[in-house]
Amino acid sequence: MKLLFIGDVVGSIGRNMLSESLPALKRKYRPQFTIVNGENAAAGRGITEKIYKEFLQSGVDIITMGNHTWDNKDIFTFVDNEKVKLLRPANFPEGTPGIGYKIIAINQQKIAVINMQGRALMNSLDDPFRKMDEILKIVKSETNCIFVDFHAETTSEKQAMGWYLDGQVSAVVGTHTHVQTNDARILPQGTAYLTDAGMTGAYDSILGVEKEIIIEKFISQMPVRHEIPEQGRKILSGCFIELDSTTGKALRIENILINDDQPFGSE
Amino acid sequence: MKLLFIGDVVGSIGRNMLSESLPALKRKYRPQFTIVNGENAAAGRGITEKIYKEFLQSGVDIITMGNHTWDNKDIFTFVDNEKVKLLRPANFPEGTPGIGYKIIAINQQKIAVINMQGRALMNSLDDPFRKMDEILKIVKSETNCIFVDFHAETTSEKQAMGWYLDGQVSAVVGTHTHVQTNDARILPQGTAYLTDAGMTGAYDSILGVEKEIIIEKFISQMPVRHEIPEQGRKILSGCFIELDSTTGKALRIENILINDDQPFGSE
Amino acid sequence: MKLLFIGDVVGSIGRNMLSESLPALKRKYRPQFTIVNGENAAAGRGITEKIYKEFLQSGVDIITMGNHTWDNKDIFTFVDNEKVKLLRPANFPEGTPGIGYKIIAINQQKIAVINMQGRALMNSLDDPFRKMDEILKIVKSETNCIFVDFHAETTSEKQAMGWYLDGQVSAVVGTHTHVQTNDARILPQGTAYLTDAGMTGAYDSILGVEKEIIIEKFISQMPVRHEIPEQGRKILSGCFIELDSTTGKALRIENILINDDQPFGSE
Amino acid sequence: MKLLFIGDVVGSIGRNMLSESLPALKRKYRPQFTIVNGENAAAGRGITEKIYKEFLQSGVDIITMGNHTWDNKDIFTFVDNEKVKLLRPANFPEGTPGIGYKIIAINQQKIAVINMQGRALMNSLDDPFRKMDEILKIVKSETNCIFVDFHAETTSEKQAMGWYLDGQVSAVVGTHTHVQTNDARILPQGTAYLTDAGMTGAYDSILGVEKEIIIEKFISQMPVRHEIPEQGRKILSGCFIELDSTTGKALRIENILINDDQPFGSE
Ligand SMILES: [Fe+2]
Ligand SMILES: [Fe+2]
Ligand SMILES: [Fe+2]
Ligand SMILES: [Fe+2]
Ligand SMILES: [Fe+2]
Ligand SMILES: [Fe+2]
Ligand SMILES: [Fe+2]
Ligand SMILES: [Fe+2]
Repeated sequence: MKLLFIGDVVGSIGRNMLSESLPALKRKYRPQFTIVNGENAAAGRGITEKIYKEFLQSGVDIITMGNHTWDNKDIFTFVDNEKVKLLRPANFPEGTPGIGYKIIAINQQKIAVINMQGRALMNSLDDPFRKMDEILKIVKSETNCIFVDFHAETTSEKQAMGWYLDGQVSAVVGTHTHVQTNDARILPQGTAYLTDAGMTGAYDSILGVEKEIIIEKFISQMPVRHEIPEQGRKILSGCFIELDSTTGKALRIENILINDDQPFGSE
Repeated sequence: MKLLFIGDVVGSIGRNMLSESLPALKRKYRPQFTIVNGENAAAGRGITEKIYKEFLQSGVDIITMGNHTWDNKDIFTFVDNEKVKLLRPANFPEGTPGIGYKIIAINQQKIAVINMQGRALMNSLDDPFRKMDEILKIVKSETNCIFVDFHAETTSEKQAMGWYLDGQVSAVVGTHTHVQTNDARILPQGTAYLTDAGMTGAYDSILGVEKEIIIEKFISQMPVRHEIPEQGRKILSGCFIELDSTTGKALRIENILINDDQPFGSE
Repeated sequence: MKLLFIGDVVGSIGRNMLSESLPALKRKYRPQFTIVNGENAAAGRGITEKIYKEFLQSGVDIITMGNHTWDNKDIFTFVDNEKVKLLRPANFPEGTPGIGYKIIAINQQKIAVINMQGRALMNSLDDPFRKMDEILKIVKSETNCIFVDFHAETTSEKQAMGWYLDGQVSAVVGTHTHVQTNDARILPQGTAYLTDAGMTGAYDSILGVEKEIIIEKFISQMPVRHEIPEQGRKILSGCFIELDSTTGKALRIENILINDDQPFGSE
Repeated sequence: MKLLFIGDVVGSIGRNMLSESLPALKRKYRPQFTIVNGENAAAGRGITEKIYKEFLQSGVDIITMGNHTWDNKDIFTFVDNEKVKLLRPANFPEGTPGIGYKIIAINQQKIAVINMQGRALMNSLDDPFRKMDEILKIVKSETNCIFVDFHAETTSEKQAMGWYLDGQVSAVVGTHTHVQTNDARILPQGTAYLTDAGMTGAYDSILGVEKEIIIEKFISQMPVRHEIPEQGRKILSGCFIELDSTTGKALRIENILINDDQPFGSE
């Protein structure tokens, strides 16, 4: 089984980069499943139903979110639809709208996709380690192919989750810091691991946001309104993972990075 | 001018990896200057005079530190020596022992090395952006070749510093998260940038620390004592930078990563 | 029913102040139950079995803890005794040693004492609000008299807990900030509330710790070792609460504060 | 010299409480100077020019602010007026609009008022301790009467500032937590100290904000919009300080608290 994962898509420039790049990426990697983190898709803040539908139409199979899940209120109009293909972190408190994991099936192949959020230097949520235990008990009876988007701030919590799940899931890929890490590896018990997939959006930016605004925020310590550049050079970040469909063990994980310095097909 | 930078060396296993790898790295890259972050060199916590001297003897030209600078009290015996080749973050409060930047010269070549620490989700220190302005005014009269080790937690503060200094310094390389990022690039005005160089130490660990201890900490939320594995597989992380010695502009930046999955010479 | 609660006892000076003051306090208030927060009793860090036993001998009925629960390893020798009269926060993760609430009975009177810890600007724990719901379901069948020590950092989380529990418990008293607040009141549905009871220990100190050390920490931003003054002027902080034993509703809550500026009996 | 200080006025309900109570407070305490923290005056977020002028007209001599200074953009229209009687924290970065301290004179009496903000568990600002040193050097040549509003989160940083300034200023009064503390005292060298003055606004609220909204935030961990109750019971919090006008030493400090449980004149 082959998976394509694309990290936090930021704003319209990120959505454009995704829709432009997806056909070529699919030709190259031939993934059965394409997963995209969309927590920043709507101008950096959350997602709308329109964008959600565009993602699905452009060939995305399921969308994961993170701490920006609720930034755009439009999400409440579809997040609880029975067939929704959007996950919010599974360790949000009991009673939270939406779902945190889902088993999707395409052509006889089944994969469980789990979205989880870290707590270190972030919001107060339910324990992501115990929540993983709970979910694994349920999904393991249906499939060994399990992909986790762990949306977290610190490298220590992310690596801890990777090692904790080693041998139990197919892949643990981090999101949230918007910078791709260079540590893709298969852990000893067969779990593919990457601390952060990175983001998809404006290349000459700070995490996808206008760089002058963020610099100004650090220097002035005044509140600023994040603006997303709509024009300019773009970056797409993600990873490609290949699994043994029966055991769910990872066979391969590769960083995907497309930008002006590393154009597609240049590697 | 060619620079070799090695990220946070953790414990004796990290020091062994450094001393084993340095000769081959020097043969390959032929750096004029070798800079190493040593804040975790003494069992993960600070540095001792003995380790400091071993670093210099093994071919390190200057050592940078970070938030763990004072963890081992032995540092106070040499940090204020006139010729010390160790920097602690320059934006520690006025009156702090040690120095935060230094111009070093080897064979007619001069480089200013600056160690700075971030504030976002970290300790309360002086403003690193304004402190950079102050230091640049001083060092610019002596050399255009300027290397910055920016020891910070968040990707946003690190990228903000990179863009802030673009065109003013030769390179901004991040440390502290212990995971190498995959975003090495030369910014439009000629500054080499890498969000984090990564760490040097135990490969099958969490940030260089025994992984079982860190997992236990997250699950139990109890205090634990960090132990550094002394045996096992190793990783070395860093980067190679080439500058125009006259203008100080970066010509090239390359990630360096050595571990069992990517042995030296395999790229 | 009458309750005496004494806030965080810090070090030997705090323990002395407690044992000196308790007889007079008991004569004055005639409490059926005396509850003491002991998380800083052993030199500021945790508690030992010896100190625990001294507390009980001096007339304390039950001891609550907080984020410093595990600082002194001696606690593991008795925290799981079947009849232990020490609580650690109830929302520590499942599997944590010790207990988080207990129903104690003295002369036909029964009270449930619950220790809970906040999460805002603190450690990642289980949700204290939902954990309260769980515990109340259990204890309500045995008694309406319920005392909560809510060990938390922010005034907002503490007030939120007070209002959340209004009418469901007899009293919510905060600890952890070591400074007594001046907001003791009975909320509209009958719950006594006080944001923080304050601490018991050295009066000319910073939260019970040597003041020069803490000032030095803020100014130098270097690690320091907290020392507790063993001599000097003392303060005792707490509150007195009177309940309707049948309904559990609070009838009265009064701050208790004893120091050189407000000697016992001076009010 | 007599001073009246009123803590964080929150929303229109807080402004009404202030204007209703001020005449009686002035009759009772006969202050030469009345200082009010206005960082939450405009619906909880910052201040407008209209509100600023109303404060002055109602008998306030100078207004202090805090972390909410810039929440309402209207402040930029008057914050840099030459004669402005509004202070923002003095340790905001160099180049920040507005001023952080001011010497005001009424009937031959002069007092320096300083607004400062803490850094522990708050924004990254300049060191408040060193900034105090700087300002004291300037103002001490004009007056010994010095009032400090220290807007900070943690009790440790506030007490550290109190002890640091003991004997150097007339009073250190904290703001920001919106809950009045019960620790008003005169420190050994003559500085009046109170960890927090508390807030002025809705009594049946959480820090002045609709209590249901804040409880919902803690339970759901979703973003909420803070609303300020416009009706209902009110609270006013502050303190009264008396100084020796020549030496600047404090002679007296008293909590002021007015609410339904403690109506004005009931003490
Ligand atoms: Fe994101
Ligand atoms: Fe995020
Ligand atoms: Fe490090
Ligand atoms: Fe570090
Ligand atoms: Fe405590
Ligand atoms: Fe505590
Ligand atoms: Fe406020
Ligand atoms: Fe504030």
